Amino acid sequence: MSDKQVVVVGAGFAGLNAAKRLGNVPGIAVTVIDRENHHLFQPLLYQVAMAALSPADIAAPIRSLLAKYRNIRVLKATAQSIDTVNRKVVTDSDVGDVPYDYLLLGCGAQHAYFGHEEWEPHAPGLKSLPQATEIRRRVLEAFEIAERESNPEERRRQLTFIVIGGGPTGVELAGAIGEMSRFTLDRDFRSIDPRQTRVILVEAGPRILTSFDDKLASRAMRDLESLGVQVWTGARVTDVTSDGVVIGNDKIAAATVLWAAGVRAADIGRSLGAALDPAGRVITKSDCTIEGHPEVFVIGDMSSRAGSNGRPLPGVALVAMQEGVFAADIIKKEVRSGAPVTRPAFEYVDLGQMATIGRSRAISEFRGWKLTGVPAWWFWLLVHIYRLSGFRNRLSVLVHWAWSYITFERGARLIIAKDWQSYPDKAASPGNS
Amino acid sequence: MSDKQVVVVGAGFAGLNAAKRLGNVPGIAVTVIDRENHHLFQPLLYQVAMAALSPADIAAPIRSLLAKYRNIRVLKATAQSIDTVNRKVVTDSDVGDVPYDYLLLGCGAQHAYFGHEEWEPHAPGLKSLPQATEIRRRVLEAFEIAERESNPEERRRQLTFIVIGGGPTGVELAGAIGEMSRFTLDRDFRSIDPRQTRVILVEAGPRILTSFDDKLASRAMRDLESLGVQVWTGARVTDVTSDGVVIGNDKIAAATVLWAAGVRAADIGRSLGAALDPAGRVITKSDCTIEGHPEVFVIGDMSSRAGSNGRPLPGVALVAMQEGVFAADIIKKEVRSGAPVTRPAFEYVDLGQMATIGRSRAISEFRGWKLTGVPAWWFWLLVHIYRLSGFRNRLSVLVHWAWSYITFERGARLIIAKDWQSYPDKAASPGNS
Repeated sequence: MSDKQVVVVGAGFAGLNAAKRLGNVPGIAVTVIDRENHHLFQPLLYQVAMAALSPADIAAPIRSLLAKYRNIRVLKATAQSIDTVNRKVVTDSDVGDVPYDYLLLGCGAQHAYFGHEEWEPHAPGLKSLPQATEIRRRVLEAFEIAERESNPEERRRQLTFIVIGGGPTGVELAGAIGEMSRFTLDRDFRSIDPRQTRVILVEAGPRILTSFDDKLASRAMRDLESLGVQVWTGARVTDVTSDGVVIGNDKIAAATVLWAAGVRAADIGRSLGAALDPAGRVITKSDCTIEGHPEVFVIGDMSSRAGSNGRPLPGVALVAMQEGVFAADIIKKEVRSGAPVTRPAFEYVDLGQMATIGRSRAISEFRGWKLTGVPAWWFWLLVHIYRLSGFRNRLSVLVHWAWSYITFERGARLIIAKDWQSYPDKAASPGNS
Repeated sequence: MSDKQVVVVGAGFAGLNAAKRLGNVPGIAVTVIDRENHHLFQPLLYQVAMAALSPADIAAPIRSLLAKYRNIRVLKATAQSIDTVNRKVVTDSDVGDVPYDYLLLGCGAQHAYFGHEEWEPHAPGLKSLPQATEIRRRVLEAFEIAERESNPEERRRQLTFIVIGGGPTGVELAGAIGEMSRFTLDRDFRSIDPRQTRVILVEAGPRILTSFDDKLASRAMRDLESLGVQVWTGARVTDVTSDGVVIGNDKIAAATVLWAAGVRAADIGRSLGAALDPAGRVITKSDCTIEGHPEVFVIGDMSSRAGSNGRPLPGVALVAMQEGVFAADIIKKEVRSGAPVTRPAFEYVDLGQMATIGRSRAISEFRGWKLTGVPAWWFWLLVHIYRLSGFRNRLSVLVHWAWSYITFERGARLIIAKDWQSYPDKAASPGNS
């Protein structure tokens, strides 16, 4: 009997953990398809945007992570749709369609603008490395422009940073800008005082960090304010332009606007023909598969399903990792027994959640424990160092953090030009070869 | 009496060292103008191109490096020309022209295609960070395409890498590709054997590394060959296209071609009205100034001048650093005495030169000593770690090197998309804001 073909689409937390679980299992051949060559440690992506870490510190090649599993091959290609009838993944690459016996679909989510995609050029979101380095470029460039600027009004606009969305990402971005302007850039400018920077965190709802306990969220708000961040709750953004942001009838001039307000599941989910929730997530059964297709698992941020408490599972790494392992275990069992098995329901083991607010401050909930301030920050640091995949990244991140902690410096304060050509006029730019 | 205005254009090795020398000197106000926000440690740029280091590991913000000197301000702007009559630097920024009493011009060089600028899209050179990450992307992507490719001819083309130019940069690039394909990528692919990679180093002259002793160059050539690099000397490239390279009448199909064959001084030198050499370098007097303008110093790779042995000074960091310090000392002396002083002639203290060839091998000449193999490589490593500016970069690079040395891994194997927008069709791309 030939090996069962398991195709994993997306090497995020869900897909990578599923693939590892299936690594070197007899009777199973795995193909991992991802359009990137690297797995991204998303929880630290904001640190790349805030010039604290380099892209390579939070990304590891998928091939390296899976090299030791001889039954896994990695295909760098974009999956375009799923043909559930003929059981194959349609890709854009020369290899064409990839047939499967089991499919694990975990392509994650991207930020969404609630129908205002025209805001994106003015308010980048934070889901990928190119977005992170673009945000880094904009934030650092704003200080450079302010330093050269003689018009006080324009200088004020350059020094105004608006972060839209009061979830963990928005809080982490706003806190980091506040901290960076107060401590890191402090000595480096002559004409401006970086401490005059205005950082505004805008949230449409009545409070920030709604997934957290009220007390912890209040503490986070006080921590933000101590870094000079203004927190505006109940403020709904009605327009974003190249000049700034409109909230109700007020126009706030700001050169840098960052978007952390909403997500939408990857488009490929639509091709399954299954029911979707309003954010485009695929509604899955208790065993993480879709109706009528016990061979198709949808895992991670792409899937929508209520937890045992009736509330929808949050779009966090821990859920994705556990779902990946859960789905892989069902496949292993069925391949071993050679027949369909009774499937358990996925149970999320909620270990907690956390968010950092600048230097030395955080909030965390862990198995009922609640921590704030410096202890929460140390706990956050330990957990993230521990979870970083690959020893080298971990060591490198530790070195960078230790250095930043001691010196208040940021290690990756780079503004890098987008274009690499020195002679742009003399030759047409070719396609990516 | 007001402070003497010293303007430093370009924060490379020459300009940065000149500025530091003038830091906190009474009676002198310094403006450093650079179009980038960072100083780049060019000798390790090939390691970024070869996925061993991250851009931030070899770049440090100019502002941070000079923050402690309160008489220095840094201006991120592009200097467009020099008005030597009215003694000012014309910039593209809002600050307009920057007047000077003394000018230190050190804008370096870029690669040149000897009148074939149309080759650049097919054969990037290595002078900047965007070029380094573009080369990284091309090299890594070639292996990915080869893995998916079923046509053996096209697969062979994807696995053929041609490096044009047998100087230190060409040797380092070719050696690193040879090493990477043999050791690092070894286990990671299923359909291709990365060891079947062809790496060809093409040199028009009779031998590689002409600035080195003949014996050392021969040793480097043997080291390259042991990594599978073919060295073709006396081979003149007559065309570079998207398919590959033409040498004489032979067409060699190659998906990746890298250019390390020639340099040309920065264009701004032309605006001085001084004599230029064929590579566009400004011909300077023995005190590093130009004829008729004792207040204009041209330093580093932009200048052309014979050393005491009659041969032109090489375009290396050591010359640039020494020239920067030399010019700054003359300015300090004149400002202190309040009148022109008798100027000494610049004397280059030649400490030697070195080049690495992949893992554990190098050649070096140091004060008459000649080293090869592993000792030369350790010596190379110590010198470069020592010279890296900024403790954090140094520590980070050490960690990355140690890790790579033990594991044969490369820490920055990232293929990063160029475009950051998720919704590219729905909104026009704005200018850089």
